[in-house]
Order: sequence, then C-alpha cells, then structure tokens
Amino acid sequence: MMNKTALPEKMTVVAIQEPGGPMVLKPEHREVPKPGEGEILIRVRAAGINRPDVFQRKGLYPAPPGASDLPGLEAAGEVAAVGEGVKRWQVGDRVTALTPGGGYAEYCLVHETNALPIPHGFTFTEAAAIPETFFTVWHNVFQRGVLKEGETLLVHGGSSGIGTTAIQVATALGSRVIATAGSVEKCAACSSLGAVRVVNYHEEDFVEAVKEETNGHGADVILDMIGGDYIERNHSAAAMDGRIVQIAFLRGARATVDFSQIMRKRLTHTGSTLRPRSVAFKARIATDLEAHVWPLLAARRVAPVMDMIFPLSEAWRAHERMEDGAHIGKIVLDVA
Amino acid sequence: MMNKTALPEKMTVVAIQEPGGPMVLKPEHREVPKPGEGEILIRVRAAGINRPDVFQRKGLYPAPPGASDLPGLEAAGEVAAVGEGVKRWQVGDRVTALTPGGGYAEYCLVHETNALPIPHGFTFTEAAAIPETFFTVWHNVFQRGVLKEGETLLVHGGSSGIGTTAIQVATALGSRVIATAGSVEKCAACSSLGAVRVVNYHEEDFVEAVKEETNGHGADVILDMIGGDYIERNHSAAAMDGRIVQIAFLRGARATVDFSQIMRKRLTHTGSTLRPRSVAFKARIATDLEAHVWPLLAARRVAPVMDMIFPLSEAWRAHERMEDGAHIGKIVLDVA
Repeated sequence: MMNKTALPEKMTVVAIQEPGGPMVLKPEHREVPKPGEGEILIRVRAAGINRPDVFQRKGLYPAPPGASDLPGLEAAGEVAAVGEGVKRWQVGDRVTALTPGGGYAEYCLVHETNALPIPHGFTFTEAAAIPETFFTVWHNVFQRGVLKEGETLLVHGGSSGIGTTAIQVATALGSRVIATAGSVEKCAACSSLGAVRVVNYHEEDFVEAVKEETNGHGADVILDMIGGDYIERNHSAAAMDGRIVQIAFLRGARATVDFSQIMRKRLTHTGSTLRPRSVAFKARIATDLEAHVWPLLAARRVAPVMDMIFPLSEAWRAHERMEDGAHIGKIVLDVA
Repeated sequence: MMNKTALPEKMTVVAIQEPGGPMVLKPEHREVPKPGEGEILIRVRAAGINRPDVFQRKGLYPAPPGASDLPGLEAAGEVAAVGEGVKRWQVGDRVTALTPGGGYAEYCLVHETNALPIPHGFTFTEAAAIPETFFTVWHNVFQRGVLKEGETLLVHGGSSGIGTTAIQVATALGSRVIATAGSVEKCAACSSLGAVRVVNYHEEDFVEAVKEETNGHGADVILDMIGGDYIERNHSAAAMDGRIVQIAFLRGARATVDFSQIMRKRLTHTGSTLRPRSVAFKARIATDLEAHVWPLLAARRVAPVMDMIFPLSEAWRAHERMEDGAHIGKIVLDVA
C-alpha cells in the first residue's frame, strides 16, 4: 500500500569507511531504502551532527541492531514515501525526525511517530538541528530529572547543542539555569540564551558559584556530559533531593567519589542514552515535545543555536569542527 | 489539656557519657519529659538497638537539632500521657513508635503520628524491633526504589535487622529476593525468611550469582548498606533501569567506580537517612505501613527476627553484640 512516487533507485550517502579520523567519512552510492510498516521515507534536506556520530565514526559506539550503519541521528526534509499503515503523514509533508541512524544521506527511513512537523517559519537546516538535543533534554532534564518550575538547573557544556537547548527550554518553562562553559565567547552565548549565571570553568569553581547563586541551596537538577572529576563536584553542587543526570563522559567514566552525599543529601544519580530506546519510547517523547515545546519553537521563544552548516559531502569537516570544540550550538549538514 | 496521670518526676535512662566504646553508655536519672502539642509520652517497655546508635555513641552521628541527646530510635510501650491536640491515642494504648532519639529510657516522647498500634499478639520486645527497620525498608525499597511485584530485590547484609525485614516484606509482597550474608548460619536465616538465593560473600561473587539467578537480567532494586567496592559491583549486578538505594557505608563511602553503567543501563543510584526527616514525612510512611504491612504482621506472615534481649542498664552489652557482628536480626533492650 505504498504511495508510489518517482523515487530514484540510488542515493548519495556519507558512510564510515572504517573506524578512524574525520577523513574516513566518504560519500558513497546506495540503494534508496523502502519504508516498512509504519515508516516514512524522508527526502533529507538537512541532517544534524551529534557527538555520538563522532564516537560511532571512531568505532566506539556501534549502531544498535537493526539500525542503519550510516551515521546521523536527526534529519529534516519532505516525506517522499510512506509505508503501510502510516496515518499521520502524506508525501510532501515537511518533517523533522529523530532517526535511528542514517541521517547522512539523501533519503532516510524513520518510524512515523518519531517525526514531527517542522515548526512554522523554520528552515530545513534549523529544523534538522532540533530533534536530537530536544528529545535528549526533554527526557533527561524533565522526565528523568523531573525539573520543576522555580527549581535550579545546572547545565555543563552550556554552549553545546544539548547545553544551548537545555538553557532555553528550562528557562522558558520557568526554571533558573546556571551553565558552565570554557571561553568568554561561549559564556556570553549561554547568558544571551537566558542562563542567570555562567561559570567559565577555567576561572571559577562551579560548586562555589552554584552555592553562591542559590544562597547555599544548590542545584536541583544537574545535566552532565563531562563525568570524571565533575561527578563528585556535582554531588557537592547538588541541592538536597537533587537529581544528577549523566548523558556522556567527555572527561571519562572512571572516577573516585565520596558517595556519602548521595545518602546524606538523598541525591539521585542516573543517566541514559537515547539511541537504543524503542520507537514507542521515542514516540512518547515526541508527543510530549509537540505539546509542551513545539509551541515555544513556533513562537521563537526557543530555537536551535546554529553554529555552522557544511555540505553533506564535507561531513568530515563538520566532524573536525565538532572535535575542535570551538563550536557554539549545532553543526548541520546541508543535503541539497 | 494534658491527661493527668500519676507520673514519676524522674526516670532511668541510658546516656552517652562521652564519645567512645560501649562502656560510655551509662544509666542516669533524668526528668520525665512532658508531651508538647501533638506528642505522646510512652512508658517504654522495650527499645530497639540500631546501627546509627553505635555511630552516635562514637560521636560520628550527632542527634539532629531538637532531638533528645539520648540514643534510641524506636520504642514500644504504653501511652503514659498525651499532649494537647492528640487525637488518636489515649493513656494506656499499646504503641510502637519511630522516635527521633531518646528510646534508651523509661519514658520517651514521640509525635502521635509516628506511633502505630502494636500488632495483635506481639510482645513489647518484638514490637520495639519493628519501627526502624520497617520504616527504613518501606521508604527505601518501596518508595525510593519503587520495587514492584515480580521484580528481583538484592539485599546486602541479609541477616541484619534491615536485611531480615527487607527479605520478608519484599517476599510477602511478591518480589524475588536475593540476599548476601557472611556465614553459613546467616545464609540459612536468610533462606528461611524466603530469599530465593543467598550468597555467602566469602565464597561467591554476588554479581555472578545475581546474573545466574535472574538469567542474566540482574537485580531491579538493590538495597545496600555496605558501600566501598560493592558500589561498582552493584552497578554490574543491576538490571537495566535498576535502582540502587544506599542506606549506609559499612565498608566506607569512598570508592573508584566506572560510571558508564549508570548511563548505559539507565541506573538510578540514590539513598537516604531516616532520622533527620520531618515528623510529617515519617507520618506518611507510618500510614503506608499500617495499610500495607501491618496486616502482614498481624497475620505473622512477617515478623521481626529477634536476636538477643538485654536489660536497659546493660545497653553497653547490646552495643558490643552489634559491633561483634554475630547477630542475626534485631537486638532489643528490655525496659522493665
């Protein structure tokens, strides 16, 4: 029951030739995939770059079973074909989607429930910069961390894609956000997005800064992708009943910690990864996002912070940019 | 509006003369305290011994602000007087209560909402052995750890007061319990209480045992009072979405851990201490316990495991017994 459209047989993709540096990302020709039951085929116009793509390229984060071997966890474009049973979308609809992989390509498959309409007025490149960070922040900060209005959120890596999203969404929903970042420019970006206090971690101890900014209360929720020595310091910066959510370990996962604060302050240290979750799980996040965050996007009260845009064929440059660490916000591929 | 009864002016208590070994616990005479608003005065007939009493005696766990300086976190007896506004209790009622301290005494004050009726057929010494472990297990395993029917609970220190309570209550409410203990006799006690598997930690690695017993699934909830090297091993023994609840650190709070499992398995590591919580918080646990666990006690489907009973004046011997570590279940003071 597939809608028949004039689809090409072949498409250009960027694949990982072998584990290694950015230069292992090479254009290839592949068959255009066909949507299965409940799936839509997106004619990708833009695809977001994310840190897990870099780990995957290095061979450290293999694609989960059943997923495309191609990198790319988010893509925006038009629906090019729909599989059996698809209810919401028609060919031509403008969507942005959280993909299980395969975003670095002209065409990409995704379950219809993991796609959302492109917010009014957003370009494809902006729209492609939304899913991964918004799904991640929604699940980890609001569902897992249960951040409530009036509470304080501490966001590490405040100028990253995740960080800039967390600052904006939490601020828009009534929390006070403290962010850490590593340069004057990055700190300024965090401030302009609404952070009430930004800590340049080269110059200031975030534990002291959080205590000072919260009159000794501490941070109710901490979103951390740093790990290493930040883990014990997060315990110290957390409020009573604080929740610390770990989404990466850029400084390493191994650390020596005095765990007594977990008990004394009744902390909750948890974490998650988004990619291996089920289609149904991601669909529930999508439903929540559409209800609570899509209106904020449509009103431009929140928007992805755009760093740089590279052509699909130069995905390697996009990875270099991410690994250099100078970016602020999202790096996106333009898939003409 | 206090009920007037013929109360003595003085009472015998056991106080901590100075921080130190068991011998610093000495009988003293003190004024019988008067119940304030909402409080009841219990004529203590028996008082439970708990590990925090030992830490308090050593000077490591000071009484919270406003609490009695006397040790003793649970007591059973008759209501001897009631303060203004007390609704539930009358002089003469048989109660067992979670106390903020002060249990090692002939009379003890407690808020009326933190007392519960002695289950039918229970002696005072049995009743005094209930509150601390049942409140602790209920909050940490069922409220904080959210243990559900059909899930697997791993309990360390299975033969302790906490351990024996956790095994029985979780089993009675439909979970499978795996326990660890340090001797053949202690392991046998855990088995007889319903543990489906008991690990003698001198002979077997609990991580492997949990995996084997759960067909690789792991423990959904882990109740840990050990800490130290158990922390990383708990991460390994936990199931996906597992909850680890820390209630003490008998092997120390400092440990080196690879935290990647927290993220990959979406673990929740949390913990708490009961004593500093508010009267209202403890009252909510009491309400839950009366609804869900008191019927199990009345039916003798669960009951405190009684280790030894010492006279109040020999509280020092009770502490020696606890510190020797040979006890199975609860050590209680008889307050004649």
